[in-house]
Parts: sequence; C-alpha cells; structure tokens
Amino acid sequence: MNINIPRGTKDILPGEVEKWQIIEEKAKEVCARFNYKEIRTPMFEHTDLFQRGVGDSTDIVQKEMYTFTDRGDRSLTLRPEGTASVARSYVENKMFGFAQQPVKLYYIGQMFRYERPQAGRYRQFVQFGVEAMGSSDPTIDAEVMGLAMTVYQELGLKKLRLVLNTLGDSDSRKTHKEALINHFEPRIEEFCSDCQNRLKKNPLRILDCKKDRNHELMKSAPSILEHLNEESKAYFEQVKASLTEMGIEYVIDPTLVRGLDYYNHTAFEIMSEADGFGAITTLSGGGRYNGLVEDLGGPSTPSIGFAMSLERLLLALEAEGISLDTEEDLDCYLVTLGDEAKLKSVSILNQLRSAGIRSDKDYLDKKMKAQFKAADRLKSKFVAILGEEELQNGIVAVKNMETGEQKEISIENLSAFIKQGL
Amino acid sequence: MNINIPRGTKDILPGEVEKWQIIEEKAKEVCARFNYKEIRTPMFEHTDLFQRGVGDSTDIVQKEMYTFTDRGDRSLTLRPEGTASVARSYVENKMFGFAQQPVKLYYIGQMFRYERPQAGRYRQFVQFGVEAMGSSDPTIDAEVMGLAMTVYQELGLKKLRLVLNTLGDSDSRKTHKEALINHFEPRIEEFCSDCQNRLKKNPLRILDCKKDRNHELMKSAPSILEHLNEESKAYFEQVKASLTEMGIEYVIDPTLVRGLDYYNHTAFEIMSEADGFGAITTLSGGGRYNGLVEDLGGPSTPSIGFAMSLERLLLALEAEGISLDTEEDLDCYLVTLGDEAKLKSVSILNQLRSAGIRSDKDYLDKKMKAQFKAADRLKSKFVAILGEEELQNGIVAVKNMETGEQKEISIENLSAFIKQGL
Repeated sequence: MNINIPRGTKDILPGEVEKWQIIEEKAKEVCARFNYKEIRTPMFEHTDLFQRGVGDSTDIVQKEMYTFTDRGDRSLTLRPEGTASVARSYVENKMFGFAQQPVKLYYIGQMFRYERPQAGRYRQFVQFGVEAMGSSDPTIDAEVMGLAMTVYQELGLKKLRLVLNTLGDSDSRKTHKEALINHFEPRIEEFCSDCQNRLKKNPLRILDCKKDRNHELMKSAPSILEHLNEESKAYFEQVKASLTEMGIEYVIDPTLVRGLDYYNHTAFEIMSEADGFGAITTLSGGGRYNGLVEDLGGPSTPSIGFAMSLERLLLALEAEGISLDTEEDLDCYLVTLGDEAKLKSVSILNQLRSAGIRSDKDYLDKKMKAQFKAADRLKSKFVAILGEEELQNGIVAVKNMETGEQKEISIENLSAFIKQGL
Repeated sequence: MNINIPRGTKDILPGEVEKWQIIEEKAKEVCARFNYKEIRTPMFEHTDLFQRGVGDSTDIVQKEMYTFTDRGDRSLTLRPEGTASVARSYVENKMFGFAQQPVKLYYIGQMFRYERPQAGRYRQFVQFGVEAMGSSDPTIDAEVMGLAMTVYQELGLKKLRLVLNTLGDSDSRKTHKEALINHFEPRIEEFCSDCQNRLKKNPLRILDCKKDRNHELMKSAPSILEHLNEESKAYFEQVKASLTEMGIEYVIDPTLVRGLDYYNHTAFEIMSEADGFGAITTLSGGGRYNGLVEDLGGPSTPSIGFAMSLERLLLALEAEGISLDTEEDLDCYLVTLGDEAKLKSVSILNQLRSAGIRSDKDYLDKKMKAQFKAADRLKSKFVAILGEEELQNGIVAVKNMETGEQKEISIENLSAFIKQGL
C-alpha cells in the first residue's frame, strides 16, 4: 500500500502557505489595477485541445502530459499550461462577441507536467498568467510585460532582466525559416536527432536546443531581426517605444524563440539575475499568438499573454533575501478554569468572532499555565481569563499582552473593549 | 477532434467569477477568525489512499473516481474529497508533533467525481472544508458546526437547518450494528442488492439507501440513540449543550449516518430549506472521525471536520434571492486623440496603476466617441482626456463621471487628484 504523497508534488502547510497567499493576492490586486478579470477553466481538457493548442511536436505533448481515459472513454489530459484552455473557453463562450474588447483575462491555477522533479520544478505547479485577446496594438504588448514586472517589483524583486525578441509576422518567419534551413542543413548530421527532426518542420526550435547549444553554427545562425519585413519592424519598434515610455528596461535577444507555430511578433522572458538562483533562471515567459484562436475554430483574434511560475517566484524572492511578512497572530485567547467556564467560553468566543475578532481557546482540557503558554505561542494580543469568580460576576479579566495591563470587563462589553485595543 | 469543454465541467467567466471570489474570501476570513489555517494538498494522490481513507465499499471509490496510471506506472486518482488527503498530510508531515494542538486546518479546492451531471452537481466541483485534528473536546464539534453556519449566515442565508446525530463510540456502534442486522435480516431479500451486501458489512448504510428508503422496516429500524453507552450519551449531551450555548438551533435525526467505519460520535448536515431549491438540499456534511489518522499509519488522533460544496452554496443563495455585490467598476479610463497621445498614455496609465488606481485605455484605435462608450461600459468613475493640445501643455482634462464636473490637471498630479476623488 502506498499512501505517501505522489512523487513531484508537495503539500503546502501553514507557515509556508501564507507566502502563497501573499503572492497570489498581489497578482490579483495588480490585475485589478490593470483591468484584467479572472477566468477559471477545468483542471483537465480533452487531449485533442493540447495536441492542437500546445503543439504535437512539443516536449510537453510528447513526453510530459498526464493523459488518461475517463469512465466514458474520453481521452482527457490534466492541463500542462493555461493558454490553450483560455483560448478554448474564448471560442466556446463566444467571447469575441463581448461588447468590451480586447478581453483581458487572468488565471491562477495548478498545472501538471510529468518531468524529472528538481529544485523549483514539480509535477504539479502553480502558474499565474494573463491573456489579452482581441487587440494587435503594440501598447498592449507593453502592458502585459509591465503587468508581470509590476507583480515582481511590488513583491520586492530587484534583480530582474526582461529579455525581448520578435518573431515577426508569418511572412518574416517564412523567410527566416528558409535562411535557417540553408544555414543548418549542410551540417545537420552534427546535431542531435531532435534537431534533425526539427530542421524541416520547425528549424527555429533548433536555436532552443539544450544539447546543441554550444555548436559553432548556433552563434552564426541567421537572426530573425535581419529577416523582418517593414510591418514587423515597425511593430517591434512600437513595442520597444512603449516599454521605454513606461520606464521598463529590456535587453534584445534574437535567440529567444517560442517553438509554436502560432506565435508571432513579440516574445519575451523575465529572468532572475540573483546570485545562486540555480540553473533555471526564467521566471516567466510570454508572447503574442495571433493564430491560436483561429486554430481552435474561432475568428482571427490577435492575442498576447504570459505565464509565470509561482514556485520560481518564491525561489527568486528567497535568492534576493526578501522575506514576505507572514507573521501570524491572534487577537484574543480565552483562558478558562472549570467546566462551567469552559461551556460559557463557547458563547464568548462566538461573540468575539462575530465581531470580527480572531480568537481561540483550549480544546485539550489543559491547565491554566499551559493555556497561557498556548496564548503566547499563538502570539495573542489579548488574553481573556474566565474563572469561577469571574463567571459569577459576569466578567472576564482581560490582559493586554503587549503592555501587561490587566482589566476586568463585563462579558457583554468584551468585544467592544478588544476591538478598541486592536 | 474534440476540443470542447469536458462533460460535467464548466468555465467560470468574468461576471460569474466575482461570486466565487466573494464566497471564498468569506470562507477564508471566517477561518481566520476561528483560527483555522490553510493547507493545500495535490490534486491527485495514490489510489491506495482513497481506497483506504474513503473506503473500498463506498460509491465514490467503486464508481466515481478518476483513476489513471502515470508514466512511472503509479496508480493515481484525482481527489474525490479532501479529508483523506489532509489526514495523509497530517501523518506524513508529522503534524501530531506540532506544539500547538489541535491542528486546525481548512482547504478550498477542486474535487473530482465521475457522476451523472445535474443541477448543482459537476464532475469537477469545489469544496471548502475544515479539519480540527487532535482534540476530542465536544466544544470543538460545536465550533466546527458554528464555523460552517457562520459562513452561510454572513453571506445572507436564512433558511438553514442543522441536522445533528451521533454515531456513538465503537462499542455503541457495535451494539447498534447487531440490532440492525437482527432487524433487517429476516426480510433482507425485499431490499436491493446493494443493501443485501451491506447487511453484514455495514448495515448502517442501509439507512442511507435511496432505493429502499420507503420500505416499512426503515421507519421501525433501531435507532443509534437507543444503543449509546454512557460515555457516548454524555459526549452527545455536551455537544448539544455547546450548540445551545452558542445560540445555534439544530434538529436531531437518528437516521443521519456517515457510511465510513472510522466515523464516530458527532455527524451533521446543513440543509437549505429554501423553496424550489431542488432535490439535493444538503449544503454540507461533516462529522467526527477518530479512527482515520490511525488507519493511515499515524497515532490515535480524534478529529472532526466538514466539507461544503461551493456550487450548492451559490444555488442556495440564488434560491433565497440573495445577490452578492459583484458590481465591477473602474477608477479611471484614459481617452486619447492622436498617435503621440496614445504613446504618452502608456506612461500615464503606468503612473495611475502604480498609485493603486484601477485604470485602462483603448487598444483598438477607436474614435473618441467609442472610447467614451467603453469608459461608460466599464463604469469608470473618472475619464481623463489627452489630446494634442493637452499633450503640449502637459495636462489632461479630467471628468468626474458622477458629477459631470470637468477640470484640467497637470499630468504629474493626475494620480493624486483621482485618489482624492475616489
């Protein structure tokens, strides 16, 4: 019998979960300011969606998906990323008909990939992402990048690098593709078998290969920037001008590619430059995907988005020595003596909690001393003591744990008294 | 190719998602007041866990689980409920050794059951649940019920019924089980095949049968309340006294059972009594499970919890005609005229958003009139207009959409001006 946690997954317990709450709250709050609305899609989709929407030739689809057959004989797959599901939902719910365009969405949710677990990489992980669908305005490309940077910066990250590239439009990509084939074909047998397969199908992905990255042909490979047509060039210039206008620094890296066919124009990654961050320094990645919605049966819908790993975000915070304020405390701990006081404490607690006061009591029949110890451990600001005598007089003895001051308060006034003191 | 949403699941879109945000926020906030901390466990577990922790003989395990084999040949199952995972985590993370006891946890998350979809029942659904682990104090049973009731009541539900029962301790259950066997055995062939199977294994579940619920032997079946030993009776009395002390009304229903062996003492359900709520009126259910943690390899850990369906909660709100305040608006919409103003608007937006102001602009090169229309649609409180003249003078014309008042403000003072007006 194996009832341990599945390999590559983890529990997030109190003490750690508060960090998650803070970064998710920050992401949501920044989205509200940028006028992005939440969307929630199912944890699984029909496998077809990801084969079509992520791409048959990707590692994700070929090696990393959790695919299974349900009791109705459907092939389902736990979502490996968020964009395909959002695009599917956009088409299915006819969001192209919404009065307000572009449709600006965000999601925060678990994703699943069967990969070798390592630091910052889990088989179940959490991504925060946004998708701005229905606009090909270069200022929205800048907005999307700005949103990601804002989340990082407002959490305290300083050592960030925004890496920018363009993939051009489909014409530019076609010319570039031919140039890449001409460049690599004569010596393709020196490359790995994956690259050999990529040559004709998608030579751009050769630039992304981890095995062959030091091959001399890599450095001399033709750059997309030399193959942009006028329109693509102008688009890229406007994206850059918008970033500059916003005061966002970036570096151009023409080797930054996104492997999927429906990507075009803007591609970007945000990296951590913190010392000792580890091998994988990419915190988030995104780009423009003007073809995806059409591929999924919808109308032509120019779109851009990014996905951000929250696990990596937490690692980056750690690498920069930033500790989020996760200090947990309590407003009032109720110490009781005797059975009658114990029963009465139930309604006193109820009174406190109804008034919005975070409060607790002992549930283990502990002695008074141990109850005080628990109050300390929970960092309670007030301790309210209810013994037999207090009970008879309808009062509690309330101690302010910061000042040490102690006062007798009638039971019915306890909430008001504590609220005043908080 | 099937790329539609999988049967029995749904997308939650803007317009609807705000309701979810409100009820989840309420659950979290009530948990903070009751001093329960969040725990997050994976979406899937080893199948063994649910066979052991939910029970081999249950419908869930026999008919409703999403079970699959991963690429490492493990049998995994999407979690059908939350308690087994929390108990697994409690054992694996040795929470029984935590200084602060009992360990009070809550979760909000997706669960998965392959059932026939119907109103309020999906194959992927969301449960909010709490588990108080490590105390057998009857006042914590009342606390857990009180927490659930508080969430419902503070969201506005009035037509609630708390149904209470006890299953007694294992001795009481044993005596009761024998009485049930004696009662049903002579005429067991009149019952469904499921019930015939249940007779020797778990006759308590006969009382729960939907097919045979009108059989005359049901009404006359021996009640657990007649078979409680002194200890169990006393425990039940204290739970009831605590509820009364808290001012929480309840009704006793001795036919309310929980099918699993590790349940004992307190069992409860909260039902909606709203007219036209539909067939399934149970909003949440819970109870004491003193045996589960030990079953999973941990030390004896008396525990109690509940799980609440958020889909049903939303249905109950609807049935009572309660509409949550999900009105969405915007603080400032930027209207621009001309290319230069458009570029400049990028940095103005940045200024506004950095100051915490929820703001947006056009991304479709719309005419001024259409931009104003968008501002209306987004219910923007302010509209800031930037034309060529304003740009030259370093100002924006700001209109308060409620009062109609218009004023010229220097660009650098825009955030401050709007913040003041909000």
